[in-house]
Amino acid sequence: MSVDIKTLAKNLNLSISTISRALRDSYEISDKTKLRVKEMAAKLNYQPNPYASSLRKHKSKTIAVVIPEITNNFFALAINGIEYVAQEKEYHVLIYLTHENIKKEIGFASHLQNGRIDGMLMSISAETNNYDHLIELKKKEVPLVFFDRICEAIESSSITTDDFEGGFNATEHLIQRGCKKIAYLDLSRYLSNSNKRMQGYIAALVKHNISIDERLIMRFTNNIAANEEQIVRVLSGAEKPDGVFASVEKLAIATYNVCQRLNINIPKQLKIISFSNLEISSLLNPSLTTITQPAFEIGKQAALQLFRYLEKKNMMNVHEKIILKSTLIPRGSTAI
Amino acid sequence: MSVDIKTLAKNLNLSISTISRALRDSYEISDKTKLRVKEMAAKLNYQPNPYASSLRKHKSKTIAVVIPEITNNFFALAINGIEYVAQEKEYHVLIYLTHENIKKEIGFASHLQNGRIDGMLMSISAETNNYDHLIELKKKEVPLVFFDRICEAIESSSITTDDFEGGFNATEHLIQRGCKKIAYLDLSRYLSNSNKRMQGYIAALVKHNISIDERLIMRFTNNIAANEEQIVRVLSGAEKPDGVFASVEKLAIATYNVCQRLNINIPKQLKIISFSNLEISSLLNPSLTTITQPAFEIGKQAALQLFRYLEKKNMMNVHEKIILKSTLIPRGSTAI
Repeated sequence: MSVDIKTLAKNLNLSISTISRALRDSYEISDKTKLRVKEMAAKLNYQPNPYASSLRKHKSKTIAVVIPEITNNFFALAINGIEYVAQEKEYHVLIYLTHENIKKEIGFASHLQNGRIDGMLMSISAETNNYDHLIELKKKEVPLVFFDRICEAIESSSITTDDFEGGFNATEHLIQRGCKKIAYLDLSRYLSNSNKRMQGYIAALVKHNISIDERLIMRFTNNIAANEEQIVRVLSGAEKPDGVFASVEKLAIATYNVCQRLNINIPKQLKIISFSNLEISSLLNPSLTTITQPAFEIGKQAALQLFRYLEKKNMMNVHEKIILKSTLIPRGSTAI
Repeated sequence: MSVDIKTLAKNLNLSISTISRALRDSYEISDKTKLRVKEMAAKLNYQPNPYASSLRKHKSKTIAVVIPEITNNFFALAINGIEYVAQEKEYHVLIYLTHENIKKEIGFASHLQNGRIDGMLMSISAETNNYDHLIELKKKEVPLVFFDRICEAIESSSITTDDFEGGFNATEHLIQRGCKKIAYLDLSRYLSNSNKRMQGYIAALVKHNISIDERLIMRFTNNIAANEEQIVRVLSGAEKPDGVFASVEKLAIATYNVCQRLNINIPKQLKIISFSNLEISSLLNPSLTTITQPAFEIGKQAALQLFRYLEKKNMMNVHEKIILKSTLIPRGSTAI
């Protein structure tokens, strides 16, 4: 048996509308009455109906974070940054995983419309090449901030890192360590950040007069076994690379696994650098050279921007593009 | 301008109640009319109000997963198992992180009452030593299944692994590899699974006539730096252990970091075994010996049990306790 507003009214001998106004802290009700109502509500463990209350206030006090995966440490750390801000603001954070699947992303976008959440932080899936579901969210005036993997087709705030510079520096680092045939390993041709990293890779090759070999620009999927087979083929081929630049952590891990299987010595026969926030990069055999993004700060800035939208309605059309710096950390996998 | 049920009624020249019944597939409305209504709804991109509809049907088509953290690979894999089932059932999965904080767990439990979700899967936080918030959820008849870290105080289904055997086997493995002073590293004295692992540890010591040294049963927190300092103290002390059994992955990682700092050779000077689902255990230097739980299967079984509750009301009081087997995988960190 649940306690509703009628029960409170009956117990206090007050009208339902008085109870309702008292619970909403209306100026029409005296402080003394408000106190009586709130004490009775506490005593009877009255729980406001969240849907009714959400409809009235348009506030779920909840923000959604839509991300492709969580086995990637970047997202785990970014979520910590988001939660750091949300906790301050007394908001709940709920997390949805798309597993790099556009259909799941569309499903969530539709499910989350109409007041279930107050706003959304998003890093789009590797498959996403159509943005209708995001345009629809904007039409419904759901505040939306992109981080890391952004949607260029939509006007909104975004927090990214200097992906072009990161890609350039990673590639130049391999060149400076003696690599002449560098493979670029990537998840998707659609992702904003991957494309910038690839442009940085190409710019570094051009600067150092290394010709671009399209066969060394490789795309992978979510299927770990298939990825490893693809890497086996390139590393056992005649035109095998002497350097690998992985755009995402899991492709560096796949390369390590293949080198272990094929008895390829890292860094002697193959040097590896990767975008990664893996905390145990330094414990790998050999330790992994990384381009590390300020993942916690990215999450924090993205959440702060979302709350700017939420707290001031006139901010809804003021968009910020924040670009943070990543750091190259040289380790054993690119040692000379 | 949003399209509501009134707009549909006006466009079709039908009453609001007819539209409402048609959208609910009521037997009172002809198939022909239903088709007309649904076609118009699609044409105008009508979106039902999720709260109103949830109130009526008591179905959010959403389940919540409440877990302590995601940097632990066990939970990342368990979530994949949960999503595998939820996708089949066409349910959304939302994830809440407690960060091992009982206050956050209580906050979520209260936020998720009253129809926001249809059911909950939970692995309790390391701090949770009071269960009122969970008892309250049960009172509200929120279907609830525990996995890995369960709450013994509440009657509900649970999916765990053979934690006693895992702890016993881990400890006996270290003894067989020559260890005589084995430390047990743990997060909390409250967790159901940690306690069973510790009982297994004690039983193995007793079997092999090794006396139990309380100072070697060590408890840690969520603070990585503090954890490493605590490990530095024990590994540089006079009574330092020759074997470490970590109940959770992050304490094994902390031990590796300390050994790197203090120049302690693993496995020569210290052998390490850990409960872990770290995919790159074999790439660490040295590779890490693990007790690996069937994490995906645990998630899958937990979700299946939750859907048994959801689909059959008369199943609400039929509880299952499923215990799955974990596997000891010997690697370099315990080599002789």
